[in-house]
Amino acid sequence: MNILVNYSGDYLQLLTPELENKLQAIHLGIHTKSAEGADYLGWAEWPGSISPAFLQDIKETAERIRSTSDVLVVIGIGGSYLGSKAVIEALSTPFQNSNDLEVIFAGHLVSGEYLKQLMAYLDNKEVTLNIISKSGTTTEPAIAFRFLQQYMEKRYGNQAASRILVTTDEEKGALRTLAIEKGYRRYVIPGNIGGRYSVFTAVGLLPIAAAGHDIEKLINGAREAEKEFGVFDTNSNPAIQYAVIRNYLYDAGYPVEIMATFDEKLIYVQEWLKQLFGESEGKDGKGIFPTSVLYSTDLHSLGQYIQDGKRMLFESFLMVEKPAGDLTVFEAENDGDELNYLSGLTLHEFNLACHEATKTAHLAGGVPQISLTFEQLDEQHLGHLLYFYMMACAYSAYLLDINPFDQPGVEDYKSNIFKILNKPGYILL
Amino acid sequence: MNILVNYSGDYLQLLTPELENKLQAIHLGIHTKSAEGADYLGWAEWPGSISPAFLQDIKETAERIRSTSDVLVVIGIGGSYLGSKAVIEALSTPFQNSNDLEVIFAGHLVSGEYLKQLMAYLDNKEVTLNIISKSGTTTEPAIAFRFLQQYMEKRYGNQAASRILVTTDEEKGALRTLAIEKGYRRYVIPGNIGGRYSVFTAVGLLPIAAAGHDIEKLINGAREAEKEFGVFDTNSNPAIQYAVIRNYLYDAGYPVEIMATFDEKLIYVQEWLKQLFGESEGKDGKGIFPTSVLYSTDLHSLGQYIQDGKRMLFESFLMVEKPAGDLTVFEAENDGDELNYLSGLTLHEFNLACHEATKTAHLAGGVPQISLTFEQLDEQHLGHLLYFYMMACAYSAYLLDINPFDQPGVEDYKSNIFKILNKPGYILL
Repeated sequence: MNILVNYSGDYLQLLTPELENKLQAIHLGIHTKSAEGADYLGWAEWPGSISPAFLQDIKETAERIRSTSDVLVVIGIGGSYLGSKAVIEALSTPFQNSNDLEVIFAGHLVSGEYLKQLMAYLDNKEVTLNIISKSGTTTEPAIAFRFLQQYMEKRYGNQAASRILVTTDEEKGALRTLAIEKGYRRYVIPGNIGGRYSVFTAVGLLPIAAAGHDIEKLINGAREAEKEFGVFDTNSNPAIQYAVIRNYLYDAGYPVEIMATFDEKLIYVQEWLKQLFGESEGKDGKGIFPTSVLYSTDLHSLGQYIQDGKRMLFESFLMVEKPAGDLTVFEAENDGDELNYLSGLTLHEFNLACHEATKTAHLAGGVPQISLTFEQLDEQHLGHLLYFYMMACAYSAYLLDINPFDQPGVEDYKSNIFKILNKPGYILL
Repeated sequence: MNILVNYSGDYLQLLTPELENKLQAIHLGIHTKSAEGADYLGWAEWPGSISPAFLQDIKETAERIRSTSDVLVVIGIGGSYLGSKAVIEALSTPFQNSNDLEVIFAGHLVSGEYLKQLMAYLDNKEVTLNIISKSGTTTEPAIAFRFLQQYMEKRYGNQAASRILVTTDEEKGALRTLAIEKGYRRYVIPGNIGGRYSVFTAVGLLPIAAAGHDIEKLINGAREAEKEFGVFDTNSNPAIQYAVIRNYLYDAGYPVEIMATFDEKLIYVQEWLKQLFGESEGKDGKGIFPTSVLYSTDLHSLGQYIQDGKRMLFESFLMVEKPAGDLTVFEAENDGDELNYLSGLTLHEFNLACHEATKTAHLAGGVPQISLTFEQLDEQHLGHLLYFYMMACAYSAYLLDINPFDQPGVEDYKSNIFKILNKPGYILL
């Protein structure tokens, strides 16, 4: 598998001896677990360490869910939500109307209307619940769980416990205690892996497998990535290349990254990326601000700003080489729409031309360009791609001298919420 | 109806005599049609000028579509797509599973997989098609229409024409010619209203009415807004207030606006806003870059960056006073999730507390705060709100000395695409 990094500038020129040294130190810091935040570097060797028994266990649980349920409701927020959402959306097809199990997310928003209607919707379906939370006390998913747990108990009586799965900390936390008390099946969020790096743990794997996707292939892709992107080669390791380029651009006065795709199925990968990079880098008054666009639609919207607005943007395309399905423009008798000149062109080829036209125009407009290309949208390539981004993100943050693995601002927000709502033990200062 | 603007700084202090004069000139320029780009100022007095007969016509057509079809496929991109999409999503309910007519959008993306599966999905439904394009030659919707027109002709034979509606220029263009030739029912995009200001014309109204929403109320809201926001009062006109504040912040070193909402139903209003402001202001190397977040989910994602990242952001909340539905946190026997302290709190009240906590924290983190509050999410308030934003956007762009109504960058892109694909008559320079 291959991820190609294409940059509108001269990459090799960026590799000063000083930078090479810094990159080497980062490489060592990550792989010898000596870098800042090393307690949360577990993700780096995680795919290679997954045992066949663990995967088998997840697959069996997923099969049991699929055979007993129409809907899996997944309760989580942030890293307990975005990874599985990104993978499931990327592997879905438009207008899916099958009898397949449906995965519905809750707990990432607080909405009475949503929860009420969700419960009404569930009334004539068979349901399993998976609550994902390290502490079990993050307010938003805890609220959703309080309502949905009650719903399950009313609905299924003493069978409810067999339909509730808990993914939480191995050793501590309110949710762990509750799961033991109630006899809920437990899965573990490893202590040395943070939420936004957790897609290859039970956090991501259980919902993804329940949705019917091949988690073995997903993990195989991640394992291959672990090997490839663990090699220290500044000339050929795309994770290092991408990190170097974006940090160079940041220093050169481009603090906003526009992540662009032509594939609607990737919009939640973009949301996952915005958490991954935003939360890892956005500290100490520093960091690239990650934003996303979907083309062509946004070429007829934000395209104007990107072309001609305030110059502080660089753009990184995420391109898929082989489309999941395609059509060819046919010759029409009546060329009233003036499209006959495109006869024989596939729609995928149209998007490639569109990419070329956009790159050229935006570059001329003062927006430096990066394109990341991968082969196709399936489990294996997706596993490979997501690990690639994790490694690129770690390099990026360390290049900025930032610990990629904490999130003091989010922790502040979580405890601010406790304070403003007068949670016992929290004082509003 | 009321839109409240709350600003973390001192608004009155921003109103220098010089600025008052400039605002007055802008007011006159808009309402006497003497400002730059005046040819496209038709939107300002449009709601008040809509005749009962016009609304009746749209409503009758919508009723005919609803009685003969399960699905309305709307083909459009940019301003021919985002307005109706925003209104329909804002008025929809989660888990809608009714027998109501479904509106599906196409033409805003180019995807063979999507179009193929759309046509398969349509096979056992009754279908009407509405193509919206001023020229009829914008490539993306034209491609979708070529496939879907063929589909309709194969499917319905000589009845196809009665199931295809065209919204296009009154006097010229390829689509107009085709519609006349084929006998398609035509609706008009007024010549003096640009795409991103067209939601109250047939562009937006026909799909919105077909989806079952009350366009009379929508227009009533817009009419009320036209009166209110047409008054030149810098102390009480919220359109002027919002424009003044955001432009002050832009000048003060905050070129990125984070548009925040707690309501998932508003995410396409945010997309519409990103087009409205991005395309109106992003010119001549200037303009505020509009981005959007959905809370709570993004508080556990981009929240970290907003709190602690590079300081160049201001935040504008769009808050709804009355929720469409609500739930109250109940007391649980087992307080394992530690939520009993919230007993009696509604989820809407939780979001309000969350808003307060976030505003306070982000302001302390160096992110100036604006909150726009409106009463409730229904047709009337939505019409009022969208007109408010149009007027605020016009003031904003003129404050930056930018013509809000052209989009040279998008036009460049459209013709770049023609060139790179070798459209006859276009030469790649």
